[in-house]
Amino acid sequence: MRLSRYFLPVLKETPSEATIASHQYMLRAGMIKQNSAGIYSWLPLGLKVLRKIENVVREEQNKAGAVEMLMPTIQSADLWKETGRYDAYGPEMLRITDRGDREMLYGPTNEDMITDIFRSYVKSYKDLPQLLYHIQWKFRDERRPRFGVMRGREFLMKDTYSFDISEEEARRSYYKMFVAYLNTFERLGLKAIPVKADPGPIGGDLTHEFVILAETGESEVFCHKALLEMDAPGVVDFESDLSGHVDKRRALYAATDETHDEAEFAKIPEADRMTARGIEVGHIFYFGDKYSKPMGAKVMGPDNKEHLAMMGSYGVGVSRLVGGIIEASHDEDGIIWPKSVAPFGAGIVNLKTGNAEADAACENLYEQLIAAGVDPLYDDRDDRGGVKFGRMDLIGLPYQITVGPRGLKNGVVEVKDRSTGEKQELAPDTAIAMISDAFKGL
Amino acid sequence: MRLSRYFLPVLKETPSEATIASHQYMLRAGMIKQNSAGIYSWLPLGLKVLRKIENVVREEQNKAGAVEMLMPTIQSADLWKETGRYDAYGPEMLRITDRGDREMLYGPTNEDMITDIFRSYVKSYKDLPQLLYHIQWKFRDERRPRFGVMRGREFLMKDTYSFDISEEEARRSYYKMFVAYLNTFERLGLKAIPVKADPGPIGGDLTHEFVILAETGESEVFCHKALLEMDAPGVVDFESDLSGHVDKRRALYAATDETHDEAEFAKIPEADRMTARGIEVGHIFYFGDKYSKPMGAKVMGPDNKEHLAMMGSYGVGVSRLVGGIIEASHDEDGIIWPKSVAPFGAGIVNLKTGNAEADAACENLYEQLIAAGVDPLYDDRDDRGGVKFGRMDLIGLPYQITVGPRGLKNGVVEVKDRSTGEKQELAPDTAIAMISDAFKGL
Repeated sequence: MRLSRYFLPVLKETPSEATIASHQYMLRAGMIKQNSAGIYSWLPLGLKVLRKIENVVREEQNKAGAVEMLMPTIQSADLWKETGRYDAYGPEMLRITDRGDREMLYGPTNEDMITDIFRSYVKSYKDLPQLLYHIQWKFRDERRPRFGVMRGREFLMKDTYSFDISEEEARRSYYKMFVAYLNTFERLGLKAIPVKADPGPIGGDLTHEFVILAETGESEVFCHKALLEMDAPGVVDFESDLSGHVDKRRALYAATDETHDEAEFAKIPEADRMTARGIEVGHIFYFGDKYSKPMGAKVMGPDNKEHLAMMGSYGVGVSRLVGGIIEASHDEDGIIWPKSVAPFGAGIVNLKTGNAEADAACENLYEQLIAAGVDPLYDDRDDRGGVKFGRMDLIGLPYQITVGPRGLKNGVVEVKDRSTGEKQELAPDTAIAMISDAFKGL
Repeated sequence: MRLSRYFLPVLKETPSEATIASHQYMLRAGMIKQNSAGIYSWLPLGLKVLRKIENVVREEQNKAGAVEMLMPTIQSADLWKETGRYDAYGPEMLRITDRGDREMLYGPTNEDMITDIFRSYVKSYKDLPQLLYHIQWKFRDERRPRFGVMRGREFLMKDTYSFDISEEEARRSYYKMFVAYLNTFERLGLKAIPVKADPGPIGGDLTHEFVILAETGESEVFCHKALLEMDAPGVVDFESDLSGHVDKRRALYAATDETHDEAEFAKIPEADRMTARGIEVGHIFYFGDKYSKPMGAKVMGPDNKEHLAMMGSYGVGVSRLVGGIIEASHDEDGIIWPKSVAPFGAGIVNLKTGNAEADAACENLYEQLIAAGVDPLYDDRDDRGGVKFGRMDLIGLPYQITVGPRGLKNGVVEVKDRSTGEKQELAPDTAIAMISDAFKGL
């Protein structure tokens, strides 16, 4: 993309309403614009990141055997009345009356609807397990929306729902999602810790939050340091027994302030204890027949008897992750995108737009990077160098290639690695090869 | 995808509420499920088609230089009050009150919001033209939602907005979209006719509907037959003068019953006249300063004076197109997908699941088709052949490969072309080569 043809409205000043880094940088870098409290437009740069995160989440769901569908944003209140949630859900639910005076709502989550879909079609254990997901906008009418996309009202969530014939089978679905989440967050460049969550009245051990570490995190995290050192499982056969991957993590203490047990934590050798702030980016939850029972979602079992579907749900905050990644990865100059979600792979800074040699060298780099699949952003605008460098640092592309007449005389361009700040003078072809190599296999 | 692991709830009976082919087939083929009147879930097969159409629309917008962003579904009423549309818009607008008693609405369209975004950031003619689009769910509270996704309440639309310094420049943006639409519909396997639309109080010649022909179309179309024979422009330089492509079409009569002029139509030689039913799938519209004036969206011109932005909007009904394509392409057995939007490229029918040779041959075809990029659906279920064939015909994949022990003894499988019904016996490798060739360059 040529910057002269792009829509990238970078702000010089930090808007006063933004108090945390991700909110400030997303506004300044022209990624989002607030339309109403907690409701944002995703400007082109922001949307690119959002879609990249969404795609990583999608690919890892597909690898785990989950099947994508899409439920609507507007739901009838009827299903929520069947499960008793219509009255139970607080003022966070956006309630709507349509022109026919029917009670509707903007879905904050989809357990009721997916259970209705399931009971409409699935009648036999032979069609189980089912793992269905969608990536759809949700609305929660927060009393105090804040921190930009971290706690917005309209937000993008991936929610998966599992249906099994028994709790034992449901545990297998749960483990699939557990492993898929570890892989998802690793691909996003994040270290996510699975933390046991409060199961509430349902009880049991099958509920975890996935928390990433960041100073601005909303909760306190307490865990064994070894959890931070474990690599994600990576390529696995999702039909195989996945308990090893789950158990070795569950054996180590991890809790948020909500579930923390000081006495248990104290049993860990002091050098292995870690306390930090964290941001919840995923939540997985087994809830058995909580919805299938009131809604009568049953299948015929191999014993020729009807069984209630045993269910779980598995959420990832896709739009929240955009902010979460920035909280975890930025410096005083701006954002530092992990390569897997960077809106562009590299920026090309033309130090002398209008100079024939500089223009030609930039065009050549631009075309070759596109051919190499790197997706560059070419700053072909007629601004001062300082403005261009500041903008590139702010938007945080992994590499910046600076092209000027002086370097070109020596046959080189300057390549800066945004995350380390390291600069190298390289021949243009070497620069292209180095950068395209860095994106291989992402 | 293996059918045994997919969620494809095919119905035997045609639901009584569905009166037109696309609605019937989308329900029967397990593409959609109605959740409330005019509100649908997109089941996995339906979502795949929706996303493919969306991607074709997106790619053609990008080629034309439009830049993608994403505005939210929920809007504040404030902007609509600025333009006077909040009171003018009828009961089709879904009005919402949030927990803070603020007037909100579910966006039926986005002129007001995009104009607000534009005025917040763009101040100089140097940053023009701007062509911004998004692909987002809209809501129109139709009094009588019907025909499935053809006239739903929650629907997916691509809407582009152009901002220029003058009407003359705006015409260039309009032409870009005109050409992009011709290319878009051709790639979708549709013959779309640009028909002059009623400009209403704004007047002028810059408003067209794009109409595809189908017996169930909502409007009558009258046009010169030559319009049906013109190929889309294909690869063009969108910065060049595009008027040739537009003018040669505008020179030929085309109207719907709303704008039809019998006397003008009668001037066409009788053999060249065509009358048919049509479905509107796109609408492009230049409206000058209709929104920029009340909202004060101005830029500084080269003359150092302020100029109101001259705007146009350009819509494609993405979810409606799923139905539109089926209306234009089906037979008594089911859907016939154009290759560019087919949910899977080919179906593999195992006539004898459990037979070692048939299973092995199917697995081999399945893996090789995936490697060739065809994305097959492998029917590995234990159903009768008749059930399998009926299902494949219903869901309408371009090719069906039938594998049975008898054919395998002769070293062949049977390949059926869904659109022609033609069947050939081919060696498996030949079948793979033939099918993957057919998808090259799509």
